[in-house]
Amino acid sequence: MSLIPIRWVSQQARSNALERDIVRLALLDQRLLPGETQEVLLENAQGVACAITDMVVRGAPAIGIAAAYGVALEASVSLREADDWQTRLATACDVLASSRPTAVNLFWALGRMRDVIKAHGSSTKAPYDALLREAKRIHEQDLEDNLRMAEFGAQVIAASLEDGVTQCEVMTHCNTGALATGGHGTALGVIRTAYAQGLITRVHVNETRPWWQGSRLTAWELVQEKIPARLAVEGAASLIMQQGVQSPQGLRWLIVGADRIAANGDTANKIGTFSLAVQARAHGIKVMVVAPLATFDATLTSGDDIPIETRDASELRQAGNRQIAPDEIEVFNPVFDVTPHHYIDAIVTEHGVVESPDSDGVGALLGRAMRG
Amino acid sequence: MSLIPIRWVSQQARSNALERDIVRLALLDQRLLPGETQEVLLENAQGVACAITDMVVRGAPAIGIAAAYGVALEASVSLREADDWQTRLATACDVLASSRPTAVNLFWALGRMRDVIKAHGSSTKAPYDALLREAKRIHEQDLEDNLRMAEFGAQVIAASLEDGVTQCEVMTHCNTGALATGGHGTALGVIRTAYAQGLITRVHVNETRPWWQGSRLTAWELVQEKIPARLAVEGAASLIMQQGVQSPQGLRWLIVGADRIAANGDTANKIGTFSLAVQARAHGIKVMVVAPLATFDATLTSGDDIPIETRDASELRQAGNRQIAPDEIEVFNPVFDVTPHHYIDAIVTEHGVVESPDSDGVGALLGRAMRG
Repeated sequence: MSLIPIRWVSQQARSNALERDIVRLALLDQRLLPGETQEVLLENAQGVACAITDMVVRGAPAIGIAAAYGVALEASVSLREADDWQTRLATACDVLASSRPTAVNLFWALGRMRDVIKAHGSSTKAPYDALLREAKRIHEQDLEDNLRMAEFGAQVIAASLEDGVTQCEVMTHCNTGALATGGHGTALGVIRTAYAQGLITRVHVNETRPWWQGSRLTAWELVQEKIPARLAVEGAASLIMQQGVQSPQGLRWLIVGADRIAANGDTANKIGTFSLAVQARAHGIKVMVVAPLATFDATLTSGDDIPIETRDASELRQAGNRQIAPDEIEVFNPVFDVTPHHYIDAIVTEHGVVESPDSDGVGALLGRAMRG
Repeated sequence: MSLIPIRWVSQQARSNALERDIVRLALLDQRLLPGETQEVLLENAQGVACAITDMVVRGAPAIGIAAAYGVALEASVSLREADDWQTRLATACDVLASSRPTAVNLFWALGRMRDVIKAHGSSTKAPYDALLREAKRIHEQDLEDNLRMAEFGAQVIAASLEDGVTQCEVMTHCNTGALATGGHGTALGVIRTAYAQGLITRVHVNETRPWWQGSRLTAWELVQEKIPARLAVEGAASLIMQQGVQSPQGLRWLIVGADRIAANGDTANKIGTFSLAVQARAHGIKVMVVAPLATFDATLTSGDDIPIETRDASELRQAGNRQIAPDEIEVFNPVFDVTPHHYIDAIVTEHGVVESPDSDGVGALLGRAMRG
């Protein structure tokens, strides 16, 4: 089974009078991993919206790409069914936009699709070809940005190694790989590229409670790619770091993704990231955040303004079919935490790297990116 | 359902020609918590040994107490069956000693029972009354030691509060409560007593992967006793600590137990303790270790000499009926970690407190305890 989380499937249907291709979107069902690798095949925008809501696909970049393809799918249906295509596609965009209210990339991708629709406002039929081209461009651009970040991140690792040392181990948290993106990954993309370059010898993966994205998704990706990796509970981090720094080619970097980055570099990411960054600092291990420019929220001067979203208590009371905590216990189940920028050694984007990030460094990067 | 994990049950059986009491050991089945509260009734030493092996009862002090009662049970059977009591009890002690090879308290408790057997070597029947008295004394002494530690610990908390502040919140890890001991607890015993004294307003409980002793046992104990508590994943610790220190009556102490303490104060405890202690230090939260004197291993000059025991990988691959990690991923599943003494602010024992523990402080405590 391939690692491709989002795949556009086109089959020629010659029996059809129109000789039109039958097109579908294939999403690797991430709810079933690692037990089963199975694709869900979707035929219209509503199906894609449900797949996003139901977490068949997750990870902000991956959600944006899937939604873009969802609009193209709907245009294809519109061509067959000769409906009022403009109303149909506007509704499709609205349905997709409401599938996951917090994913920023979703709105950005749908904005690009709406621009294409608008540009073809005088057309008598849905601009299917143009919409599919745009969806594929969004997908390809994400992959290209990932690969660019990966190169930058690998360079940062290489430059950080002591004289005479050519390799190290790294730790990562949650899933930031092919499954969360267009196909390569942000933090895990850096790890993938640095491993291919011979810079990394082993990856330490935290299981990432309560959703086990580390165990279920990151471990699975690393197994698929035969990258040496070791899984542990979050609690083992200080033991692993302490042992890791003692070895000449041992653990040197904690590499994570980001959900939102404030103007001063404070970084919201999966719960546990702040805890790991604090420990990394104590043990002399560096911290790298890898995220596309779209993750920055320049309207926030610091991470203090990022609200902490919490999820249902059941995630800490049940594990599979097992009750693991009494119903009466109060549960605090935050989705992410905010790592203050002074715990971060480098933020890696597709437009370059900010070392020891602060307002000045982040501002310079954003300015450079805007200028071109 | 009561919180009593170990209960000696004696029922008069008047129909019996000997009018002997029917005695049994009732153990609260900790494997079923928090879903079910059910006791297992045991009638002989072999049954108790199996209950220890199968984790019906866990926690080093609790295991020692259960084993002592197991010898008394066997003496009772011996009286009824008129066997060669000396052989029978010697075998019983051996069987119990092999039930959990690493629990130091088990050997210590069985040593005391063997001394009683030896003292009655010339008796024609098993010294049942003397053995039961000794088992009860071990049980009571553990409880008394717990209560003494709890008083000392509460005093340390009270003395640490800023002027004008009378209460605080605390965090604990794993289970060190009534379920792990003779009935009060070590770290959780301090929390219980300090809460009763009005010093503590809320307890932050870490779920304690991979065995969920925090969720399953500590949360359950706190719910039973109506002590305000909140459960979270280990990864949330830095977020909780950061929020907690900002409040005038917020989080001030991380309070944990110990599996083994070296002569310099380095403390082996449940995996995650070291990680939490590192974070506590970074956030200005103090760290208290609570353990009876028997936990000290003066033969070890530092924690470097404590081997790190690892458990089966399946604990990180399965959760209830759910597969959460691929079979092919390498797993690192250490049972405990070692917190260097410089991360510890106080070690609390039944013989007093060592603040900012090091070799001198620990040596002075051990010397004082030995002298009387």
